[in-house]
Amino acid sequence: MTPPTPSNLGSNDARWLAAAARLALRARPASNPNPGVGCLIVKQGRVIARGWTQARGRPHAEAMALELAGDDARGADVFVTLEPCAHVSQRGPACADLLAAAAPARVIVGASDPDPRTAGKGIERLRAAGIEAILAQDPHSADSLSGYLTRARRDRPHVTLKLALSLDGCIAMADGSSQWITGEAARAHVHSRRALADAILVGGGTWRADTPRLDVRLPGLETRSPQRWVLTSQEAPGARTIAAPAEIARIPAQYLYVEGGARTAASFLEADLVDRLEIYRAPILIGGGIPALQDFGLGELAQAHGRWQPVERRNLGPDTFEAFARTR
Amino acid sequence: MTPPTPSNLGSNDARWLAAAARLALRARPASNPNPGVGCLIVKQGRVIARGWTQARGRPHAEAMALELAGDDARGADVFVTLEPCAHVSQRGPACADLLAAAAPARVIVGASDPDPRTAGKGIERLRAAGIEAILAQDPHSADSLSGYLTRARRDRPHVTLKLALSLDGCIAMADGSSQWITGEAARAHVHSRRALADAILVGGGTWRADTPRLDVRLPGLETRSPQRWVLTSQEAPGARTIAAPAEIARIPAQYLYVEGGARTAASFLEADLVDRLEIYRAPILIGGGIPALQDFGLGELAQAHGRWQPVERRNLGPDTFEAFARTR
Ligand SMILES: NC(=O)c1ccc[n+]([C@@H]2O[C@H](COP(=O)([O-])OP(=O)(O)OC[C@H]3O[C@@H](n4cnc5c(N)ncnc54)[C@H](OP(=O)(O)O)[C@@H]3O)[C@@H](O)[C@H]2O)c1
Ligand SMILES: NC(=O)c1ccc[n+]([C@@H]2O[C@H](COP(=O)([O-])OP(=O)(O)OC[C@H]3O[C@@H](n4cnc5c(N)ncnc54)[C@H](OP(=O)(O)O)[C@@H]3O)[C@@H](O)[C@H]2O)c1
Repeated sequence: MTPPTPSNLGSNDARWLAAAARLALRARPASNPNPGVGCLIVKQGRVIARGWTQARGRPHAEAMALELAGDDARGADVFVTLEPCAHVSQRGPACADLLAAAAPARVIVGASDPDPRTAGKGIERLRAAGIEAILAQDPHSADSLSGYLTRARRDRPHVTLKLALSLDGCIAMADGSSQWITGEAARAHVHSRRALADAILVGGGTWRADTPRLDVRLPGLETRSPQRWVLTSQEAPGARTIAAPAEIARIPAQYLYVEGGARTAASFLEADLVDRLEIYRAPILIGGGIPALQDFGLGELAQAHGRWQPVERRNLGPDTFEAFARTR
Repeated sequence: MTPPTPSNLGSNDARWLAAAARLALRARPASNPNPGVGCLIVKQGRVIARGWTQARGRPHAEAMALELAGDDARGADVFVTLEPCAHVSQRGPACADLLAAAAPARVIVGASDPDPRTAGKGIERLRAAGIEAILAQDPHSADSLSGYLTRARRDRPHVTLKLALSLDGCIAMADGSSQWITGEAARAHVHSRRALADAILVGGGTWRADTPRLDVRLPGLETRSPQRWVLTSQEAPGARTIAAPAEIARIPAQYLYVEGGARTAASFLEADLVDRLEIYRAPILIGGGIPALQDFGLGELAQAHGRWQPVERRNLGPDTFEAFARTR
């Protein structure tokens, strides 16, 4: 499940960039609506400073890391997941200018910025300052920026659909009982995933049946509970609503986490609005239960293939967690 | 997924016994109705002879290995998955006597034999001959003997239920089309599993809908196609039939491989006649398809838990294979 090394990078550089991408996770979701970026400054094989985008986007990852590195940044290698910004804002100087002033030997960039104020200009400014700037197509960086990139390219949040299933693909028994299919570790993991989302959505059926709290119940992360949204044509007191999946564009989120039920899941799949599938699976059989997904308009079996790429798998107590990315 | 080391064995001994259990697989299914046993003779840390039960049960694994080892067996360690037989038959001497004559230092046994002609007597005879005989409760040995032990204890074959599913637990689209859910590697693996069964069974619905060949289509293994059985109240020309799952007792098999469909799978589960579940899962979503299992009488969700222990997992091309053993 490990993506390939970018072709223009040595394996050490690729590993530093992957580490910067992991660091970028710390910015999620607080950086919204700004990209969550990770930055590592490396000298003689050692990390001398780290940075990641702070809440609501400032300071930027590079600014944080450069501040920490001080003069030591001179001659170092800077690994940053997104092209350094080239535009001065009221909230701070352009990172490309900060980097030019700090004079590292190299800046290795994981992904170019689709923002027209920066696209290509960040790299250019570094090169004009005599710094070796390398733009890698790094899958880890792109992955860590998927919310930002999906907003920029598709004008909507990145959508994760979560399913908690039995081996035979049921989300509940025929009578609707679904407490519990998965165990404690899996349920805690769901809360940690919620904490990485800006917004969370369920269908009107689930909202009315379960009145779910949809909050993050992990010690220390209670403040990370995302905004609640419901897909419904009705009112949903306590949440905001959309009346069709296509309306997710107006949810002010980079990362939207969809928790079901079956009709909502099918509606999102039918609209091809699911970017990532997260499946929790318990080692149980239900038999004749409520299936995970209603018909979403699959024409032929052959069309079902090649759409979902496995990207993560782990055991969670007795259950398993598997994530799949939509290939596009 | 590795079972624990038996408490009365050192880890080296446990490893040799596990290796003998892997060797025993070679006896499957040809040894039927005799147990498929594996035997390793080890001297100074090296295997000096190997044996496994030959077709229709003779020679026994120990006889084969002792024949190969000759005089070198003296003072060696013999690892054997099942207690050596203590009864002389027309087809050969008792293995306990052969071992006593060969005078190894130790005989390490993986499982005791429920056959009253041997139970305990094999070990006793070895001890009477001054050989150190250790009876371990080795999970690998028991697993490799599951067909034999199930026949002995439950008077029926060991039943494996195979399911080929989408992520959302469907065995077919709503219109019944199921070619193909899984890919070539998974389908070849199914054939290799058929080759380990004495008999294979499908429901009348599948028999009439697909007229499946149910044979082993792997180069060199064509002769390993198991007997075909159909669960049906009707005729099934080309196969033998049973009219209820409980009738499997009269299928002359140690290993029965059940390939579906959904009603047959549910019938076997309802009768609690499934010992091993083998799930092939393709990374596809179907949505509103035919579910893997119909209602099999699960009363409450809590009762679904703790019944299936994961014992094997591998990737097969884009698909995964997972096996679960029924905990009893
Ligand atoms: N095990 C699990 O992971 C899990 C997770 C969640 C839910 N569940 C269970 O699933 C059950 C609910 O599932 P469900 O399928 O009945 O309901 P649901 O998907 O939660 O909600 C269905 C409702 O969503 C709205 N909706 C769906 N698609 C739409 C579209 N394309 N446009 C506009 N609105 C749309 C409609 O709301 P309105 O009718 O309000 O207009 C529809 O009635 C509950 O029993 C719950 O416990 C299980
Ligand atoms: N993807 C896969 O892994 C897979 C595997 C196999 C089949 N399939 C598909 O599944 C479909 C068939 O499934 P299905 O559920 O309709 O049929 P099925 O399980 O193959 O057969 C149902 C029939 O089995 C007999 N039966 C079942 N339970 C019984 C019991 N307790 N006592 C006596 N007889 C019993 C009855 O036979 P009689 O009516 O003859 O008396 C019943 O009509 C086909 O479309 C096939 O392609 C998919």
